[in-house]
Amino acid sequence: MGFDRKDLLGIRDLEVAEIEYILNLSHSFKEINERSIKKVPTLRGKTIIHLFYEPSTRTRTSFDIAAKRLSADTYSITASTSSVVKGETALDTLKTLESMRPDVFVVRHSSSGVPQMLAKRTTASVINAGDGMHEHPSQALLDMLTILDHKHRLDGLNVVIVGDISHSRVARSNIWGMTKMGSRVVVCGPGTLIPPNIDTMGVEVSNRLEHCLPDADVIILLRLQLERQQQMLLPSLREYSACYGINGERLKKAKKDVLIMHPGPINRGVEISPEVADGPYSVILDQVTNGVAVRMALLYLLAQR
Amino acid sequence: MGFDRKDLLGIRDLEVAEIEYILNLSHSFKEINERSIKKVPTLRGKTIIHLFYEPSTRTRTSFDIAAKRLSADTYSITASTSSVVKGETALDTLKTLESMRPDVFVVRHSSSGVPQMLAKRTTASVINAGDGMHEHPSQALLDMLTILDHKHRLDGLNVVIVGDISHSRVARSNIWGMTKMGSRVVVCGPGTLIPPNIDTMGVEVSNRLEHCLPDADVIILLRLQLERQQQMLLPSLREYSACYGINGERLKKAKKDVLIMHPGPINRGVEISPEVADGPYSVILDQVTNGVAVRMALLYLLAQR
Amino acid sequence: MGFDRKDLLGIRDLEVAEIEYILNLSHSFKEINERSIKKVPTLRGKTIIHLFYEPSTRTRTSFDIAAKRLSADTYSITASTSSVVKGETALDTLKTLESMRPDVFVVRHSSSGVPQMLAKRTTASVINAGDGMHEHPSQALLDMLTILDHKHRLDGLNVVIVGDISHSRVARSNIWGMTKMGSRVVVCGPGTLIPPNIDTMGVEVSNRLEHCLPDADVIILLRLQLERQQQMLLPSLREYSACYGINGERLKKAKKDVLIMHPGPINRGVEISPEVADGPYSVILDQVTNGVAVRMALLYLLAQR
Repeated sequence: MGFDRKDLLGIRDLEVAEIEYILNLSHSFKEINERSIKKVPTLRGKTIIHLFYEPSTRTRTSFDIAAKRLSADTYSITASTSSVVKGETALDTLKTLESMRPDVFVVRHSSSGVPQMLAKRTTASVINAGDGMHEHPSQALLDMLTILDHKHRLDGLNVVIVGDISHSRVARSNIWGMTKMGSRVVVCGPGTLIPPNIDTMGVEVSNRLEHCLPDADVIILLRLQLERQQQMLLPSLREYSACYGINGERLKKAKKDVLIMHPGPINRGVEISPEVADGPYSVILDQVTNGVAVRMALLYLLAQR
Repeated sequence: MGFDRKDLLGIRDLEVAEIEYILNLSHSFKEINERSIKKVPTLRGKTIIHLFYEPSTRTRTSFDIAAKRLSADTYSITASTSSVVKGETALDTLKTLESMRPDVFVVRHSSSGVPQMLAKRTTASVINAGDGMHEHPSQALLDMLTILDHKHRLDGLNVVIVGDISHSRVARSNIWGMTKMGSRVVVCGPGTLIPPNIDTMGVEVSNRLEHCLPDADVIILLRLQLERQQQMLLPSLREYSACYGINGERLKKAKKDVLIMHPGPINRGVEISPEVADGPYSVILDQVTNGVAVRMALLYLLAQR
Repeated sequence: MGFDRKDLLGIRDLEVAEIEYILNLSHSFKEINERSIKKVPTLRGKTIIHLFYEPSTRTRTSFDIAAKRLSADTYSITASTSSVVKGETALDTLKTLESMRPDVFVVRHSSSGVPQMLAKRTTASVINAGDGMHEHPSQALLDMLTILDHKHRLDGLNVVIVGDISHSRVARSNIWGMTKMGSRVVVCGPGTLIPPNIDTMGVEVSNRLEHCLPDADVIILLRLQLERQQQMLLPSLREYSACYGINGERLKKAKKDVLIMHPGPINRGVEISPEVADGPYSVILDQVTNGVAVRMALLYLLAQR
């Protein structure tokens, strides 16, 4: 089985075999990025449009580098540019751009479901680059690829996701993906930042990081949005950091081969201490490197249709 | 006869044979955009600079896609970026950029006449991508190409342009172009939005859309700038829409093969109802598709000199 | 001797032989920019990231054109885009982007020393495109190339740099470069805009432009930042212009083959009159043309490692 979809909208929809197929292909694309001449002609003459309604450096640049290393031409439309400002709907913007014959739209939007809605209305491919609190599938794929690089399996691993689960599309996509692939997933954070029915997604819930640490093979730290404090969902950053931040002292209770992951950008001193971020357990920069390879694989699969 | 100019500044200056030449060439470029590999090496090594003093998504992206599908390299300078902010004059910006040896400048400016002034001062080619209330020649060319696709002629057609004629460079370029090509043009809108001497351009004037509808082969709706109401040029959007908006009911009085056109972005429910915008008479998205082809033709003609 | 460094951070560090090597190479790249097809495949598959924490049109566009004419792929990250806004440190941004395997970072920052700090922490090459009041080495190199084009030597020339020496990285890089190459450099401006110990850099100081004019072979005018007046460093623009501005009358006291240079963007009527800016002694636009060639040479030297 390969991958035969028009769009990549979320991890929830994917079969295990599809995830494996994408991860295998991503692995083979990794090598191109380590060459001196990091470019292949695979997608020459293809048109990729980044349609970003939320600001982003790392995800947009990662997709852009992936596209250009495959020789595609890319265009970036952001919410701060004109027609979007003039009040045109996302759908009218999409239909207008579709009429210029792009092959793939890479869409990020602050509202859950927008990429899905747009995908139904266009014959071009759509990649969800993050929609509201819903999904961020390329992030989950690059996270799984990074774990595979180090652990050589996903099945049977203990994965702990720490932080603001409620507002995190990264958490959701990773939960769908890793439970499908056979990992045991625990979500850990203050009760105000964990959705009530999250256990229906097949995960365990904990409010005590200490309890989760000893068994963890992988710890995924989420970025704490500092505005959560103003929304009264947190007592203080200091207390959050004391309970859920990872530092060198706390890491002593973890396995000697634990992986520390973070989707970035990191808040040094809040969810992660500098010594851990830059330390031997951290694979945060490996995640970034793998991000380019995963996005090359996704663009290759969709733009080649 | 071909096309032998350094610049494309307006439709007013063009001979009928030049318009025909551009439209024929545009037609031949359309096919490239329907290929799987939408790229030809024609303008490899050429440098196109988009110099946009007004925000724009669709026009800038259309020119950018046109340029890259011809393998040119493109650069985008917008009014929100630095030197323009630092108070440098448009002419000094142009002379500085000219010294980097570009082949074509694509210029949009809120003041009428700026592209013409710049064109006189540079040896590079200049394409006017919209100047104030003056001209938007590539829009008129893509409009004519779209009409030709459906009607196979311009001569003898009844074209009605509806809306804010006074402030519209799209209206002006289309009036110059379509009257040259033998169409009968009627401009229709409230008296406050029609310039007093517009009949000297060879058009008829009407304030009653009902009177214009039955004979129209083509109806071009203009975008209503919502700030016109604050300028006391309009009583209310509701009244504007009731008198000059096109909806399904009103369209029953039109010919069965009428074309509904709009330069975009559309205000749904103001100048056009959703059922008409998305209905069988609308060729609004064909206009966008043709825009890329027209701009490929223009860049080809000017950058190849 | 060639050029064997990972980074280009400043002129101060360079040997005379390295400067000569870069200038010779730049000279050979000039010709490419005068061709009809201004592109060579030299850096195909290389990745150049512009990381600009200060706004810039001319420098960023010049580097971008240089990179693309060598067939490199370029990406632009500016301080107004996302992660930078989210509060990520410059170092974390660099490490993240480094993980995407770029070959060269072109860095501009308002704080002196940032490119140097970043260069130590990355295996990619770093070009300093201007840091605070410290250095702007590619500007000094293009200035030296422009003088060589016209005077065929740097040794023994009298160079006067006029204006706000204190806040100018252009002045500092030119002082380091031209004194190394054997020019005699005089800095001229109001006492409030000349640093007290500038003579330790090997230059002479003058507050009277009249005294400097007769012997000058080259006059480099600096852009006056208009906010210096609010900082009480200047009595008035009018007085500044009367004492230190160059106009046609004042130029009569200069040599008949004097060169007038300015890094741009110029303030017409402040540090330079329009008749001088556009007159026969001005080589301001030659500087811009040479800027592309110098940056091609620098990117070639660093990305090819």
